[in-house]
Amino acid sequence: MNIDIELIQDSKLNTVDFNNLAFGRIFTDHMLVCDFANGEWKTPKIMPYGPMLFEPSARVFHYGQAVFEGMKAYKDDNDDVFLFRPDENFNRINKSGERLAMPTVPEDVFFEGLKKLLEVDNAWIKKGEGNSLYIRPFIIASEGAISASPAEEYKFIIICSPAQSYYAGEVRVIFAEKYSRSADGGVGFAKAAGNYAAQFYPTSLAHKEGYQQIVWTDASTHEFLEEAGTMNVFFRIGDKLVTAPTSDRILDGVTRKSIVQLAKDFNIDIEVRRVSVTEIKEAAKKGELKEMFGSGTAAVINPIKGFKHQNDTFELPEISDSYASFFKEKLLGIQYNKLEDKHNWRVKL
Amino acid sequence: MNIDIELIQDSKLNTVDFNNLAFGRIFTDHMLVCDFANGEWKTPKIMPYGPMLFEPSARVFHYGQAVFEGMKAYKDDNDDVFLFRPDENFNRINKSGERLAMPTVPEDVFFEGLKKLLEVDNAWIKKGEGNSLYIRPFIIASEGAISASPAEEYKFIIICSPAQSYYAGEVRVIFAEKYSRSADGGVGFAKAAGNYAAQFYPTSLAHKEGYQQIVWTDASTHEFLEEAGTMNVFFRIGDKLVTAPTSDRILDGVTRKSIVQLAKDFNIDIEVRRVSVTEIKEAAKKGELKEMFGSGTAAVINPIKGFKHQNDTFELPEISDSYASFFKEKLLGIQYNKLEDKHNWRVKL
Repeated sequence: MNIDIELIQDSKLNTVDFNNLAFGRIFTDHMLVCDFANGEWKTPKIMPYGPMLFEPSARVFHYGQAVFEGMKAYKDDNDDVFLFRPDENFNRINKSGERLAMPTVPEDVFFEGLKKLLEVDNAWIKKGEGNSLYIRPFIIASEGAISASPAEEYKFIIICSPAQSYYAGEVRVIFAEKYSRSADGGVGFAKAAGNYAAQFYPTSLAHKEGYQQIVWTDASTHEFLEEAGTMNVFFRIGDKLVTAPTSDRILDGVTRKSIVQLAKDFNIDIEVRRVSVTEIKEAAKKGELKEMFGSGTAAVINPIKGFKHQNDTFELPEISDSYASFFKEKLLGIQYNKLEDKHNWRVKL
Repeated sequence: MNIDIELIQDSKLNTVDFNNLAFGRIFTDHMLVCDFANGEWKTPKIMPYGPMLFEPSARVFHYGQAVFEGMKAYKDDNDDVFLFRPDENFNRINKSGERLAMPTVPEDVFFEGLKKLLEVDNAWIKKGEGNSLYIRPFIIASEGAISASPAEEYKFIIICSPAQSYYAGEVRVIFAEKYSRSADGGVGFAKAAGNYAAQFYPTSLAHKEGYQQIVWTDASTHEFLEEAGTMNVFFRIGDKLVTAPTSDRILDGVTRKSIVQLAKDFNIDIEVRRVSVTEIKEAAKKGELKEMFGSGTAAVINPIKGFKHQNDTFELPEISDSYASFFKEKLLGIQYNKLEDKHNWRVKL
């Protein structure tokens, strides 16, 4: 496939302090841009990262036709670069896009474009555990027209940001009682831009109470635990791990499904089923709730130290042999090419 | 208030065929742009309408922090220009924005900015019924950072597009059975960008069946009729008018509330209450469902000729003394300064 390439004159690389990276604020030297117009995707371009011109009437600004993915590239000690289950991200961005009536991105544009971009910006992928390059592919409706209907012009863009670990500090969560993230028959399963803005205000209320995240519950009864908005959520009751099944309200997380598989591989008792607030609170009261953790590409695995529901607060016990640590070690080991990868999740570039 | 003004060199006005306007594709010569940064709104600028630079990492592209309003300016035979209940739009854009954790737009930026913009582009507001200037104020998160949290930089923009009537042709609708528009505790009441993209795919399925719009139902049971996504919906059973109450799932439409008031003014029996699919289907079967119509700024009032639910299709009777025509005549009369305006809805610029 043909890719037009325009390289920068001077790399920003030396201006970046890789030991003090705020997540998602520094971008590599280049980006991939591929335009969709007249019913077809044009030749992808790799060009210097920088501001782009958009019509103020671009539909993305008015009607939220925007979907994205989160991926990471990892570099091992031999300077080989790996992606983790990139097919999952490719399939999901198109599944998300279809739900928002957007054109699907061709496989070669996605993969050859990404591969070439990571070649060009290879020096931005740092070795060493915790270091990675966060990759953000996204599709937005660029057509300048404000009738409330799907656009006829789009841009598929990939930008990359060097990353350390996503979360700092301890995470405690609130189980949602009033606000909701998604409805049955809605777009909760999609990585649709609008799903995120909808969470910011309720999450800001949680922050004021000293909680970092909300675990969303079903909008009808607020009784069943769903996901945390940027993470799927797992509960360890005794030695059994439980997580909610995916649905049209819950994102089919790549890290989530990898943990489910790893649990099976390592004979950890795992149940994928509805999890009720009542069950978790009762388990916590009895001391049987040993762990909660979130999973996602940015965070990989994020232990949850406590939770609040209505007027009840719970603090989880310190645990030495945690599942969270176990799965994180296994996942990072596979991602950084240090452990066996029996499911061929790792893809060498 | 200070407004920086940069006027265009050559107006596009003479290049526009005002008898053949597609909705929302032609924009006036100027736009208003006001930046928010470091916790405050800067001096608004009126500048030539045109493409603007955005970081590809602007949060609006990734997390959908975007809200908008729809308003219209009308010109009467004396060349006076009127807005219709603009306070409602001002209050609502800030209510929408708060739900998405965005800063509120100050009253003077909104009103003085809009007034000055309409002065500058006055020649774009055409006289004669059906003609109007559609006004699109919107706020978008412009900060270049892809962490999933509220932006710290925004743009408030007003663009304007000369308009005739929004809908062409007859409108038939499907009552939603599977897909949903919003959840309890969600953002359905807000004019949030993501609410619209979420409707495009289900609406495209409706189009394939020959229906123009979907009337959304509650996500839990799909039994109660809510709104049509770009219109609130009214049902006339016998001589009684019924419409759903607003809620956190349903937009508090300005045209809707004006119709409710007009109905009271003119002693038309109106009930604001939940409307079930079963009730409407039974009324249709008995011949008691005399009318359905949608209301919204773009469409004003849009008669609905028929509907489908499950395998049942209904065609509404032709009606000579329709409420839809009555309210449309009253509303347009007030909007164009031809009828008495007892509630002071009309605001002269």
